[in-house]
Amino acid sequence: MTILETQGLAAKNASRILAVADTAQKNGALEAVASALLARQGDILSANAMDLAAAREAGMRQSLQDRLALDENRIAGIVEGVRQVCALPDPIGAVTKMDKRPNGLIIGRRRVPLGVIGIIYEARPNVTVDAAALCLKSGNAVILRGGKEAFHSNEMLVRIMRDALESALLPRDCVSLVMDVSRESAAGLMNLTGYLDVLIPRGGAGLIRSVVENARVPVIQTGVGVCHVYVHEKADLQMGAEIIYNAKTSRPSVCNAAECLLVDRAVARDFLPMAWAFLKNKGVELRGCPETRAILGEVVIPAAAGDWDTEFGDYILAVKVVGGEDEAIHFINAHGTGHSESIVTADYFAAQRFLDEVDAAAVYVNASTRFTDGFEFGLGAEIGISTQKMHARGPMGLEELTSSKYIVYGTGQIR
Amino acid sequence: MTILETQGLAAKNASRILAVADTAQKNGALEAVASALLARQGDILSANAMDLAAAREAGMRQSLQDRLALDENRIAGIVEGVRQVCALPDPIGAVTKMDKRPNGLIIGRRRVPLGVIGIIYEARPNVTVDAAALCLKSGNAVILRGGKEAFHSNEMLVRIMRDALESALLPRDCVSLVMDVSRESAAGLMNLTGYLDVLIPRGGAGLIRSVVENARVPVIQTGVGVCHVYVHEKADLQMGAEIIYNAKTSRPSVCNAAECLLVDRAVARDFLPMAWAFLKNKGVELRGCPETRAILGEVVIPAAAGDWDTEFGDYILAVKVVGGEDEAIHFINAHGTGHSESIVTADYFAAQRFLDEVDAAAVYVNASTRFTDGFEFGLGAEIGISTQKMHARGPMGLEELTSSKYIVYGTGQIR
Repeated sequence: MTILETQGLAAKNASRILAVADTAQKNGALEAVASALLARQGDILSANAMDLAAAREAGMRQSLQDRLALDENRIAGIVEGVRQVCALPDPIGAVTKMDKRPNGLIIGRRRVPLGVIGIIYEARPNVTVDAAALCLKSGNAVILRGGKEAFHSNEMLVRIMRDALESALLPRDCVSLVMDVSRESAAGLMNLTGYLDVLIPRGGAGLIRSVVENARVPVIQTGVGVCHVYVHEKADLQMGAEIIYNAKTSRPSVCNAAECLLVDRAVARDFLPMAWAFLKNKGVELRGCPETRAILGEVVIPAAAGDWDTEFGDYILAVKVVGGEDEAIHFINAHGTGHSESIVTADYFAAQRFLDEVDAAAVYVNASTRFTDGFEFGLGAEIGISTQKMHARGPMGLEELTSSKYIVYGTGQIR
Repeated sequence: MTILETQGLAAKNASRILAVADTAQKNGALEAVASALLARQGDILSANAMDLAAAREAGMRQSLQDRLALDENRIAGIVEGVRQVCALPDPIGAVTKMDKRPNGLIIGRRRVPLGVIGIIYEARPNVTVDAAALCLKSGNAVILRGGKEAFHSNEMLVRIMRDALESALLPRDCVSLVMDVSRESAAGLMNLTGYLDVLIPRGGAGLIRSVVENARVPVIQTGVGVCHVYVHEKADLQMGAEIIYNAKTSRPSVCNAAECLLVDRAVARDFLPMAWAFLKNKGVELRGCPETRAILGEVVIPAAAGDWDTEFGDYILAVKVVGGEDEAIHFINAHGTGHSESIVTADYFAAQRFLDEVDAAAVYVNASTRFTDGFEFGLGAEIGISTQKMHARGPMGLEELTSSKYIVYGTGQIR
């Protein structure tokens, strides 16, 4: 048995106990985690300082150093997150669709944990605790494989959580960290069949592609978002300008930010200058089709073919004039990543058609794509945003971390 | 573009139209399929005769020839299956959990098709029509890749279905067959990312393992069943004997048949002879632990280590005496495949504990494992039995062939 298989077996055994733990015990463990993180924040900050020193020495980009860094405020935020998860309803145990069959069998479908969840993510120590808390509440053991640059931080956070689990009389192995941060360990996790019930990659497009291409365990694909805002000819143009401004600039690095603006030819000449009046305030770079350039002039860089399929994650926006809703829907289904898509229109039938025909996790009428988020959707929390169609689509909360089991009560039935 | 990619793109385009087709149109297409299969049964039987002649020449096993063969009765059965699917409720379009958020956004979750489903299966022409009908009703385009020994039958069945689709004004490419039956085409289907939303292998353990190991597209793992019947010390022993007899012998080749009997030590001496009195009628071969042999004697072959993990699919039963429910649950979770597991007991707490702690798609009290089936569970039909925990677990009916889409109605909300 490899080290990873041993860890997988330990997690699987722990998951059997956690799966039948009651809500009070899981909440007790989460409260113990929250208290311990506060009580031991000195240890956490020391470990994080080691990671930060190494990061500076290695010349890590400032934005990545920012994501790596912890301080008292951030730890307080992490602890608050754990307490919010603690306050959410327990998703486990509900029985849906119970029915009595003609032969007298009573058949119900009970919500149960997935089992053991693997999470591969980048150097963000907050994810270590967020993900563990969500898995714990949903009755799943978790194997965390964080970015190597956050190793000391993660190691300390996981140690504190394991101690807290033990104090709440749950197995330490409900939460564990892959200690080997080489590429081989990531590949090992992707192939840990028999132990991992699902693997969730959280991070950039490269990480997600690598997991999808190499994993033999079931994967939930998250995150990549090439999102569109489509301004229909019957749009309230002022609303359209505010929505694209918000969708592009309120947080350009996230997956629900807009990357492409589509505008109907009938209103392009009126709308594009209005949108630009907003967008220029944040110095947004426009990459446009020839018609866009004809209207807005030299501020628009000619779009290259690849721009229509790129998640810029920055203050860059592709802009295209289209002939109407047919072309817009076809373009979105061809170039979008199935994440979040929005139409701005005052026309009832155009709105309904967009909702019907655009194939994405979240389809909006007259609102910013930025709302695709577990908290905004009322799920209370999220472990990521699924862009695949199997199992879960869109923001994944606690229920999306569950499976089901048929329970059958008989009185001797044979077939 | 490869031929398979071209086929994938055609299926994807067809799926966009099928996804928004209304129930009447889908039912019209299914009725047209049913009528056309009856009207053209001469063509079907001629094509099937070619496959059968080749199979005989190649010396195909008789049981496989039986599965390959069609006749008027079997075609009538296939047509009846299509009409049953037609009569089922349309799973698409229902909106669940619609809610108004504090910011005024109205957010709902709508049930939508998965998109394009791939099915890899063995030389069983009935699966060609069954699977296509289920996919059609659930709004999914399907790419079928059947066993090469059934190629002529499949080609004719698919041609008839495509003609019927066209007559119902739906795209022919809603249903298509992979024409290349080499291993390469199976591998190509497993890697048709960007076109296939999910791949379902239907067949033996070897096929399923190959798909799980090689596929880059999302897969639903089906079928392998090492199922147990556990006779608890408080069991009605007569009921236990009838249940293990039914679970083992009513159809030993299927995945919900029992492969292993566990019996509590306290009742083994009374129970095993009762069970054997039934099982010997079908000439069941017992492979037992030493205690089983001590009780039943020479009729029991000593079990080899691998027997506890084998889906015999035949009149063979592994038998083990256990010390109680602890050991039974531990053994089942270690050696079962998470398919169907049953306890026979009159003890309330033993029953509830078994339902809680056994990790399987279907867990039974006092009933045969043979009921794990879409029809028996009231789903109306099934495309297979999932033994994984993601997306769907247990029998998969029409709802399990769907995904969801968040629809969001706004009035200009930005974040």
